[in-house]
Amino acid sequence: MTTPTAQSPALGTDVPATMRASVLKRKGDMAMETLDVPRLEADQVLVQVAAVGVCGSDVHYYEHGRIGDYVVDHPLILGHELSGRIAAVGSEVDPARVGQRVAVEPQRPCRKCRQCKAGRYNLCPDIEFYATPPIDGAFAEYVTIQSDFAYDIPDNVSDEAAALIEPLSVGLWACERAQIKPGSRVLIAGAGPIGIIAAQAARAFGASEIYITDIAEDRLAFALEHGATHALNAITDSVEGLDVDAFIDASGAPQAVRSGIKAVGPAGRVILVGLGADDVELPVSFIQNREIWLSGVFRYTNTWPLAIQLIADGKVDLDILVTGKFTLAESEEALKAGKQAGQLKAVVYPGR
Amino acid sequence: MTTPTAQSPALGTDVPATMRASVLKRKGDMAMETLDVPRLEADQVLVQVAAVGVCGSDVHYYEHGRIGDYVVDHPLILGHELSGRIAAVGSEVDPARVGQRVAVEPQRPCRKCRQCKAGRYNLCPDIEFYATPPIDGAFAEYVTIQSDFAYDIPDNVSDEAAALIEPLSVGLWACERAQIKPGSRVLIAGAGPIGIIAAQAARAFGASEIYITDIAEDRLAFALEHGATHALNAITDSVEGLDVDAFIDASGAPQAVRSGIKAVGPAGRVILVGLGADDVELPVSFIQNREIWLSGVFRYTNTWPLAIQLIADGKVDLDILVTGKFTLAESEEALKAGKQAGQLKAVVYPGR
Amino acid sequence: MTTPTAQSPALGTDVPATMRASVLKRKGDMAMETLDVPRLEADQVLVQVAAVGVCGSDVHYYEHGRIGDYVVDHPLILGHELSGRIAAVGSEVDPARVGQRVAVEPQRPCRKCRQCKAGRYNLCPDIEFYATPPIDGAFAEYVTIQSDFAYDIPDNVSDEAAALIEPLSVGLWACERAQIKPGSRVLIAGAGPIGIIAAQAARAFGASEIYITDIAEDRLAFALEHGATHALNAITDSVEGLDVDAFIDASGAPQAVRSGIKAVGPAGRVILVGLGADDVELPVSFIQNREIWLSGVFRYTNTWPLAIQLIADGKVDLDILVTGKFTLAESEEALKAGKQAGQLKAVVYPGR
Amino acid sequence: MTTPTAQSPALGTDVPATMRASVLKRKGDMAMETLDVPRLEADQVLVQVAAVGVCGSDVHYYEHGRIGDYVVDHPLILGHELSGRIAAVGSEVDPARVGQRVAVEPQRPCRKCRQCKAGRYNLCPDIEFYATPPIDGAFAEYVTIQSDFAYDIPDNVSDEAAALIEPLSVGLWACERAQIKPGSRVLIAGAGPIGIIAAQAARAFGASEIYITDIAEDRLAFALEHGATHALNAITDSVEGLDVDAFIDASGAPQAVRSGIKAVGPAGRVILVGLGADDVELPVSFIQNREIWLSGVFRYTNTWPLAIQLIADGKVDLDILVTGKFTLAESEEALKAGKQAGQLKAVVYPGR
Repeated sequence: MTTPTAQSPALGTDVPATMRASVLKRKGDMAMETLDVPRLEADQVLVQVAAVGVCGSDVHYYEHGRIGDYVVDHPLILGHELSGRIAAVGSEVDPARVGQRVAVEPQRPCRKCRQCKAGRYNLCPDIEFYATPPIDGAFAEYVTIQSDFAYDIPDNVSDEAAALIEPLSVGLWACERAQIKPGSRVLIAGAGPIGIIAAQAARAFGASEIYITDIAEDRLAFALEHGATHALNAITDSVEGLDVDAFIDASGAPQAVRSGIKAVGPAGRVILVGLGADDVELPVSFIQNREIWLSGVFRYTNTWPLAIQLIADGKVDLDILVTGKFTLAESEEALKAGKQAGQLKAVVYPGR
Repeated sequence: MTTPTAQSPALGTDVPATMRASVLKRKGDMAMETLDVPRLEADQVLVQVAAVGVCGSDVHYYEHGRIGDYVVDHPLILGHELSGRIAAVGSEVDPARVGQRVAVEPQRPCRKCRQCKAGRYNLCPDIEFYATPPIDGAFAEYVTIQSDFAYDIPDNVSDEAAALIEPLSVGLWACERAQIKPGSRVLIAGAGPIGIIAAQAARAFGASEIYITDIAEDRLAFALEHGATHALNAITDSVEGLDVDAFIDASGAPQAVRSGIKAVGPAGRVILVGLGADDVELPVSFIQNREIWLSGVFRYTNTWPLAIQLIADGKVDLDILVTGKFTLAESEEALKAGKQAGQLKAVVYPGR
Repeated sequence: MTTPTAQSPALGTDVPATMRASVLKRKGDMAMETLDVPRLEADQVLVQVAAVGVCGSDVHYYEHGRIGDYVVDHPLILGHELSGRIAAVGSEVDPARVGQRVAVEPQRPCRKCRQCKAGRYNLCPDIEFYATPPIDGAFAEYVTIQSDFAYDIPDNVSDEAAALIEPLSVGLWACERAQIKPGSRVLIAGAGPIGIIAAQAARAFGASEIYITDIAEDRLAFALEHGATHALNAITDSVEGLDVDAFIDASGAPQAVRSGIKAVGPAGRVILVGLGADDVELPVSFIQNREIWLSGVFRYTNTWPLAIQLIADGKVDLDILVTGKFTLAESEEALKAGKQAGQLKAVVYPGR
Repeated sequence: MTTPTAQSPALGTDVPATMRASVLKRKGDMAMETLDVPRLEADQVLVQVAAVGVCGSDVHYYEHGRIGDYVVDHPLILGHELSGRIAAVGSEVDPARVGQRVAVEPQRPCRKCRQCKAGRYNLCPDIEFYATPPIDGAFAEYVTIQSDFAYDIPDNVSDEAAALIEPLSVGLWACERAQIKPGSRVLIAGAGPIGIIAAQAARAFGASEIYITDIAEDRLAFALEHGATHALNAITDSVEGLDVDAFIDASGAPQAVRSGIKAVGPAGRVILVGLGADDVELPVSFIQNREIWLSGVFRYTNTWPLAIQLIADGKVDLDILVTGKFTLAESEEALKAGKQAGQLKAVVYPGR
């Protein structure tokens, strides 16, 4: 599936010719297959995958066979939250990298367009992203990535935490765009994995009050233990009048978005992370009268170094999110696990 | 109506005790009255009003007796776009100001709250604004304003242009918030007074392409002569794919807002100036995927000095907007004038 | 000395007519005097002073009788780091404030000039600042301040910590201007009170590495316990090549400034807090080649609310700075205390 | 000299195997030579050079054989201000580009480091820059450049103007970093090519007052015709107290830098463009007290598109700078031309 445009001999250790992968053949149909190990381009590293987190978008491709305009019309390897170990390097990469434990930023921007050259490579129109048709992801023994998108991780960062830097990056990027800073008062809607991660990220950015809302009391209780300072029931509690500095939506629920916006004070910020309907009715005059800034996040830019630092320093704890562990052959079960009560994050271990 | 909390002897020239004013008694009912000239506070100036522009909000109060939560339940003097001459000054103001021609910024922030002290006095929760119940406006021979909100104007700025600095300020503030800069490509929806002013403001900020949309061909033709570089018919032409850096809505029309947003490129900005429905359905996933920033303007902050400079330098021309001239006694006609074809801006002259 | 321009009856509790104050008569000459309690303006509160920190500028006025163009040519009350309790309020202030414990921001901007209205009131050309001729400071039983510059403090903030919010504000403002954020690597020159405070502030802003330099090993050891992550001896260790994101000078030593600048990476920031010579030779081509931004701090703007939050949350600890306690009558000893080894901060208690 | 790391067949028109070039053999020694036409990498274009401006740094290499740490210890082709026509393209470049007239941005960032990925590719530590040892420049019939650094130019932009986009970029980048905007008041020191270009750039950014200083009255007169609004003699006129929003130094003279800084108002900006001594004594306490931001420019980032737009729109006129025209064989004369009175910019035409 991966078709490198150039090929160079891999400098590495005993890399086999083939590998096992869990492939989404079509909507609802996963199969274990033996595939060629992807060949390295000159600026890439070959990563032996250690751990892969399951994301809602993986589940969505599995269940629906598409997300918006991206359609699974050819077999696709899912998975874009990953860590591993460098098994080989391309011809332009320092051979000393072989053996390093790394967290992978699963995107390949063009580096040449207006967006890339302005430092916004996440908005590159030609970007390739793991597990987004037709680009394969990480439910496999090996993947390739440009060397500068594979970040060394220290020993005190677990494989699971390193994999979950991907969703952490979403939270960090949301906090950066929300301009969270010391003393900020923040509202987060949704106490799922992204909401809890956003709460931890907001705390790391210095927020002094972090309100989180959900309809599930167990999730709220968990969020209070791991980042949030206040929990509110989305059905019975009102957030209006909180006048927070920032509102981060991690629910994708239109009603949560609308009420969250009304909790924002003058000159505050709204960052929509959750994906829901394409079109949502928003309180526009409220936004105008308070000169609130509203935007979203589309993935992230340059977040891995900070993420690694925060985990290594103990300011963010991702291991607490892992509620299910699966072998590569159990990938389909991993995709289904998130639907069950009490589950936050399933992790697949391609080496098992 | 105006009830100063402190009073001091006016230092000025022959100010009479009473004045004529055009008063909105209740919805749809205007009357000429003789009122006491407002008394000066220590930090204020008394301005003999020369020219007052008619704004859509004035018309709305006249026709509906309210805007949102602001209800005309007592007689109210309308008008908040004004220029004049200083007739007297409060005890703390330099007497040399008497006689100066001034443009009036018609708001009184508290100067003490978090927003004021952060430089965002337009978002002051305790602000008083002309012609917004219960604060009187400028359809009268005299008004008072804090001295630092009455700006000297040079001889080459007409009374009318000086009055129209108020709507120009809306356009400048929109361009500043939209981060228009040299080379920017901008879309403006609505070729009414605010749209044309925004086009001129965008040109002054260095925009290289300024697209404007409207359904009226005569307005589009006029806009092309006065700021816009391209005109598009809102019904027959599509703006999608323009990928502009900024979209400024001056129409308040939900459909124009939605299609305008879809004309914005990655990392672009949307500034909603036009007032329409409280709630509008917006293309949220489009905003997220392009990380577009969306906000509105609520009046303006610190715009008068720049506005005066731009008019004096000939970079903005407001005189071309004046399509009707009325005496104070004709205020009601002035309020009705805007509805007629070809009319852009009515001006009332309280001294006539 | 204080000459209010308007006077109104104080609404308060048993305020005496006179008070004790420690007055700098002229260079090197302090005397206890009995003075009239300052009279309140309408928008002010009268604060019964609880604690006053001694600042280097107080010492400088005492020793030299001047700082730059500011000359002590009339008797002056020193002290501008203070906390206390509201004893009375002016006519426009809520009487419920009487009795509140407060931290005082010791400045009075004009609120009307270009700088004030842009949110930079510290740069107001007409600002009055405590203990800066001819404005009296806080080595006295009572002072007046505009109500919005007297901030309520919670019970878990000590009088001393509340007083030291003033120097903390310098550190917070330096970190804000230095754009310290999560993961930042920071160098601070000088492990005196401001250096240690800046280190704590940088930590609160999320800095991951905080290098501090000094020539005194005991100060370095103390700094390592209270904010810094790395200590360097300014004589024997080199900072070149650290490539930090920000350098904050709290030493005022030209050599420390020069070497500190050379420790800054591309696009980094230099904030000069320490006061030294008017003119300093700087490595200009280094600044140009790395596009480093260099500036200073002049006091602070809008920092008290964050400071109070950080202290109350235990993220900053100011009490550890207090190394000497003095009665009002001992003010002169307090001014001399800072010269002694091991001394960081002297505090005067006007109520004792 | 140029040693491509990869080679691919050039897709182009009749490109010869060899070319003429004017080579700096060593300090003060220029020679015409016949060299191989540089071979294309996959992402590059081969440009047949039309015009090359002579920059002060070219002259410095010619006269001194070095600039700072960059030493001409091997033969070097000078010239980095250039335009031309695409003669051939690398294997990854659209063949339709052959024949296009282009302006060349003469730098090759690595695109992978922290600075590049943050949108600051000019600060890339591994950047290659034309005419900086050991990278060859443009005093030759052909050069190569990455395709995205060769920008199409419209017919109404002359070869000379296209070449001078390089120094214009310095001026635009200075204005961007100085945050020049509509209404800004700007001081520029030095009315040489960069000073005049900076004045035109400031005008394009909307500056309302543009003061320029020099010691040569003819240069001042010329600057007044082409961008500046006020001219001041650096010897007889004082700039102190101007309180400008921004000061751009294009002189490199320490005294001009010092007096220029003292002309800056509170919160203003200083951008040092001119290269002078490595270390300069600066008025540090003045900078601190006004919280002035001081920085420099190191080349530029992402300026070509705006530059082309401004020239094409007639907002900037670079042709007026050309005071000498030379064939390739006359390169040495071109390098000497700038020393003569009345000379601003020499241009070399490698095709002549």
